[in-house]
Amino acid sequence: MIHAETLRAEVDSRFDDYLETLFGLLRQPSISAQGIGVDECAELVTQTLRDAGIDARILTTDGSPVAYGEVGPDDAEFTLLVYGHYDVQPPEPLEEWDSEPFEPTIRNERIYARGVGDNKGQFLGSILAYKLLSELGAAPPIKLKFLIEGEEENGSKNLRAFVNTNRDLLSADAFFAADGPMHPSGRPVVFFGVRGMLAAEVKVRGANRDLHSGNWGGPIPNGAWKLVELLSTMRTPDGRAAIEGFYDGVTPPTEFELKLLEEIPFDEAGTKAHLGITEFDGPADMSYYEKIMFQPTFTIAGINSGYTGAGKKSVIPSEAVVRLESRLVPGQQPDQVLEAIEQHVRMYIPDAEITKLAGQPPSKTSPELPVSRAAVSAMEEAYGVAPVVMPLLGATAPNYVFTDDLGLPAIWTTYANYDEDNHAPNENMTLRAFRDGIVASAVLFQRMAEVDVT
Amino acid sequence: MIHAETLRAEVDSRFDDYLETLFGLLRQPSISAQGIGVDECAELVTQTLRDAGIDARILTTDGSPVAYGEVGPDDAEFTLLVYGHYDVQPPEPLEEWDSEPFEPTIRNERIYARGVGDNKGQFLGSILAYKLLSELGAAPPIKLKFLIEGEEENGSKNLRAFVNTNRDLLSADAFFAADGPMHPSGRPVVFFGVRGMLAAEVKVRGANRDLHSGNWGGPIPNGAWKLVELLSTMRTPDGRAAIEGFYDGVTPPTEFELKLLEEIPFDEAGTKAHLGITEFDGPADMSYYEKIMFQPTFTIAGINSGYTGAGKKSVIPSEAVVRLESRLVPGQQPDQVLEAIEQHVRMYIPDAEITKLAGQPPSKTSPELPVSRAAVSAMEEAYGVAPVVMPLLGATAPNYVFTDDLGLPAIWTTYANYDEDNHAPNENMTLRAFRDGIVASAVLFQRMAEVDVT
Repeated sequence: MIHAETLRAEVDSRFDDYLETLFGLLRQPSISAQGIGVDECAELVTQTLRDAGIDARILTTDGSPVAYGEVGPDDAEFTLLVYGHYDVQPPEPLEEWDSEPFEPTIRNERIYARGVGDNKGQFLGSILAYKLLSELGAAPPIKLKFLIEGEEENGSKNLRAFVNTNRDLLSADAFFAADGPMHPSGRPVVFFGVRGMLAAEVKVRGANRDLHSGNWGGPIPNGAWKLVELLSTMRTPDGRAAIEGFYDGVTPPTEFELKLLEEIPFDEAGTKAHLGITEFDGPADMSYYEKIMFQPTFTIAGINSGYTGAGKKSVIPSEAVVRLESRLVPGQQPDQVLEAIEQHVRMYIPDAEITKLAGQPPSKTSPELPVSRAAVSAMEEAYGVAPVVMPLLGATAPNYVFTDDLGLPAIWTTYANYDEDNHAPNENMTLRAFRDGIVASAVLFQRMAEVDVT
Repeated sequence: MIHAETLRAEVDSRFDDYLETLFGLLRQPSISAQGIGVDECAELVTQTLRDAGIDARILTTDGSPVAYGEVGPDDAEFTLLVYGHYDVQPPEPLEEWDSEPFEPTIRNERIYARGVGDNKGQFLGSILAYKLLSELGAAPPIKLKFLIEGEEENGSKNLRAFVNTNRDLLSADAFFAADGPMHPSGRPVVFFGVRGMLAAEVKVRGANRDLHSGNWGGPIPNGAWKLVELLSTMRTPDGRAAIEGFYDGVTPPTEFELKLLEEIPFDEAGTKAHLGITEFDGPADMSYYEKIMFQPTFTIAGINSGYTGAGKKSVIPSEAVVRLESRLVPGQQPDQVLEAIEQHVRMYIPDAEITKLAGQPPSKTSPELPVSRAAVSAMEEAYGVAPVVMPLLGATAPNYVFTDDLGLPAIWTTYANYDEDNHAPNENMTLRAFRDGIVASAVLFQRMAEVDVT
């Protein structure tokens, strides 16, 4: 096992080469939402895998191609599926960039380019880590499978089908990805899952047309009032959903997870000041991070009825619509929650129109597994500081494809600096973050080789 | 007193002349909202008054001019202020007219032209009625004051100031206007007032910006939920406002008015089918017309927060806005109701933004006054059928300028056919409605001369 300090020195001595490889990837536009340069970038990633001594090829999907690579002994006792994405967000608005988005530029020890943090500089860290270990004669005795997709920034629309039609190819003992920014303190983050999501629209109607509020106001039902009254039955004063069956199956955090929650740094006063609020929402008996990770939400993402534009309109609105959204926690499924909402709505307004807009299951991996502990420990060694360990992220990702469909424990880390400004102009990654990501992957691969998976 | 049958025959013998006068007015565009032909039409109305033997002149306002005329003995015991408006709605959409909006055309016993029903054919009825009685040697021994304004279709913005700077000129014993359509049964309508109105906007805020519903959902307050919860405290299950002070001063209908309400024809099943509803809204102990006329409403005219457009947006909305509207009944004032709403809102959300959008007081005249009874009786004689008597209309009009500022009892009748399609393409007035309006005014003027106002 080569220690982090040694690895860091080795990375430094090869850093110009590594930067050149990264810059090559960054110069290649790969905007999945706009269909620009995607095939070319898949080729380039495949070549990058090969240059690292990894057996690589292009695999097709119904959308962007996947760059796939494999390396390591066929009889390895441990296989790690490494995930990343080579596609990037559109660079617009171009006028807000201080240098060209697809012409990487170093200023103040940072590399500026679209996609450098999200995700080219992060997945490349794992490829280069393998290459480095191999050059040092320390290739880990595990099998590494690299799955670098090209549609993440466009909703990973074909990922689930791709993974499920390639189950044998992708079989592994664990899933690993580096994506997202580090904690504001500069500590890396390790997280083990994501919340799921259900989005639905409910439409109710008063009369069958908008009506003059003077000529008709009094005896004629108002769609907006009907909707407000319905919604007021759906939430408790402490911010829970007041819907039968909504919480069925919800798995509370374990003791271990609760302890992790307590250790996540949290600036309560700063958060309140930043957002201009005096009180947090939600149950008083739950901590901030417990609410973010282990409480399903029941949110109004949008509501609209009648007229709120310029001037005024004296109308009894017929139609009123609400977009409801729930972030789901382990144990819940989108369709089960949708059904609970539907049953509640129908109890009050039998003819309401209910439309499912989107759904994604939550998924998590236990932070107590040997692979989970090994990953946390690897990050601590690589960075010289304990990572912030998050049982779940509050947001949603297709993590369930790997945990539920492939049955893998899933480990996520973050290699990009906190202020990477991904999805925004002047996206950047510090030179140090790029270097440390390579080191971190190299430490992690070595630790994975030591995990007892029997 | 010349009876209705005789009057009708006399009108018929002069009808070609009357139509020519009406057509002259109709050919003159007078679109206040677009500033088209307003001055020219005021001149034409003034000339029409003079041609009827009425002493007439133009009076200026800060907007459209008023055509004003006076006739009758200076020592008359009774003065009637006759109101009308010469301005019309814009004719658009022009392609939906079967003939030119400002080229009156007779088809199927109807005159088609913009403004024929609303209001040129109606106020002209009163002018021609005086002319006819005068020619028959039966000019009533009352003073008639004609106030024909030119901004009614644009909100009567300068009416109140005009009336109050001309109080002496306009002093009278009663106010009379013919406007609006008859009852669907073909019976004319007499009404004695209108509801008032208050419109206000309430804006509440969760955090100081929209937030990602995954990253923040759970502990961060949602503006839309705050608004829904606020609104749910503001209405009772039976459709009343749950706001302290909201109903202060509300004057219930009198016994006489309740009796009138009972006599208004009402097709409950037909109304429900027409509007696609199964139940009416509002207190079960009040009749349909009692709700329309004597119940203040508390309505959501619009509500908006977050995103309900195409696709979906995962957001915790910061801002949420509701447009509240109340139709006010006698005894209420807009600012008193606004204050009650404000106090309620501040109790729950101290920093809500509350903006008054519009306000107009209600006003009504007792249907039991001698002038009121005389008007009802005149309509019955003129049409040979009892009018539908409505204590109030549910809609709003600047009636309070005459009732409250000038202190006059106010009587409104309707001369136009039910399907006049005013404000719409192919506005029309039947030849019969035009003729009967002249007859009705002539009967009414004679009856007014008999009213004992001492």
